[in-house]
Amino acid sequence: MRPKMILFGDSITEDSFGDGGWGASLAHHFSRSLDVILRGYSGYNTRWVLKVIEKVCNGESPIGMTVFFGANDASLPDRTSAFQHVPLHEYKQNLQSIVSFIKVPTSLSFYNSFTVQQSVMSGSKPKDSESLLHAYLPFRKWPTALILLITPPPIDEDGRIRHPFGDNPSGLSERTNEAAGAYAKACVEVADECGVIGVDLWTKMQQYPNWEKSCLSDGLHLTPTGNKIVYEEVIKKLTKEGVTVETLSADLPLLSQIDPCDPLKAFQN
Amino acid sequence: MRPKMILFGDSITEDSFGDGGWGASLAHHFSRSLDVILRGYSGYNTRWVLKVIEKVCNGESPIGMTVFFGANDASLPDRTSAFQHVPLHEYKQNLQSIVSFIKVPTSLSFYNSFTVQQSVMSGSKPKDSESLLHAYLPFRKWPTALILLITPPPIDEDGRIRHPFGDNPSGLSERTNEAAGAYAKACVEVADECGVIGVDLWTKMQQYPNWEKSCLSDGLHLTPTGNKIVYEEVIKKLTKEGVTVETLSADLPLLSQIDPCDPLKAFQN
Repeated sequence: MRPKMILFGDSITEDSFGDGGWGASLAHHFSRSLDVILRGYSGYNTRWVLKVIEKVCNGESPIGMTVFFGANDASLPDRTSAFQHVPLHEYKQNLQSIVSFIKVPTSLSFYNSFTVQQSVMSGSKPKDSESLLHAYLPFRKWPTALILLITPPPIDEDGRIRHPFGDNPSGLSERTNEAAGAYAKACVEVADECGVIGVDLWTKMQQYPNWEKSCLSDGLHLTPTGNKIVYEEVIKKLTKEGVTVETLSADLPLLSQIDPCDPLKAFQN
Repeated sequence: MRPKMILFGDSITEDSFGDGGWGASLAHHFSRSLDVILRGYSGYNTRWVLKVIEKVCNGESPIGMTVFFGANDASLPDRTSAFQHVPLHEYKQNLQSIVSFIKVPTSLSFYNSFTVQQSVMSGSKPKDSESLLHAYLPFRKWPTALILLITPPPIDEDGRIRHPFGDNPSGLSERTNEAAGAYAKACVEVADECGVIGVDLWTKMQQYPNWEKSCLSDGLHLTPTGNKIVYEEVIKKLTKEGVTVETLSADLPLLSQIDPCDPLKAFQN
């Protein structure tokens, strides 16, 4: 009855229907035109995502999908969240694979097509890659879905030290803003290489005054202000792609379309 | 992949993903176990709902569905929102029909079965009605769906006069708390007669101190406090029926189920 938009990500997505959350704001904004479907998995990195993507990306194509991973991959390998760490080069490959999974023929096994996709996505031969990717277009799993790759947010190390997950005897932050920035850069590169939409949240958020405390509640997760930035960036990108309340059709007649003198007329079709 | 819960109602449902909204709170609460699907139609009364119910109640059965109408039906017939008014006896019949639509065999046309359903639901012969309804059980459209019939909220007439919809030269409220109360009573009666879950929001909300201003933003729509009451009442009823985060299975392994020493083990099945 309505197109859907899937929000796929880690805890920053799973929490996005909390107070002032960016997911709830999207659902509210599109309350008569889109179903906003929550697929947030707290703590997940891209390595784990590749183990579950066939379960998550299933069924009818969404009109759009946010893919918002990297905050856990960027955990430092020698601190308390080391088990979530994924090396930078693997993170980049994994993001490419996630995009590829949505783009390649469903009849091809994901792992069999991985090597081909790697060459497609590597960007080393732009012209060839482009034509090979183009050849794939008619067969993509969700060919019309808009993919929005969102970078991890910046990190406030002071906030992480004050609000550690469980015991942290070292007193050192398990994440750094520098590491998050490297993963964000890789994410933007993948978006460019794969021809999907990139949202550089890491850069955008640091343009806000006192972003460390105004946008982040614990140095990593989002305050209402931080949520608002994500919401606004996603809306901006969707608008640019022509996905707006105005262009989507409303589900059933709007009150403004109902004639007070003959209300039932609006329901004749 | 996940069961769903449908929120079907008027503007109080359509707005339920706004700031502090009860719909967003439900989606947040069940963020790993249920898809909360918004089907709110601002301004709709039960007469209009019967024209669209076949489009809305379609597809796979939800685990639960809130049916939250009456605030518009209860608009007074001689004031500014008269075109939304539905007489009390018709409102009651319409609610019965909505429940019947979800409960009767899909192969029977809704309108053909209306007369039969009317006799089933009338409650005049409780024993007979009960056995007839029981006979229908295996054929219901969504036999396992929990239906939560929510009454209209109370009305703060002062708030309505201060915040009218459009022009209101009479200066009189287009809704009264007394009328809303009569519709609320009818709603609870239908829930009892049909054997579905009733949520008497009209009574519950008036137990809160200063409910007129603390629960209602314009005498009709909900403040965050008002939203919290709806959320808590829905959770209470779902819990009583055994629908909780604990009883529903989480979609994919929770972070707490992932062994930090061997994270990929959790994804082997």
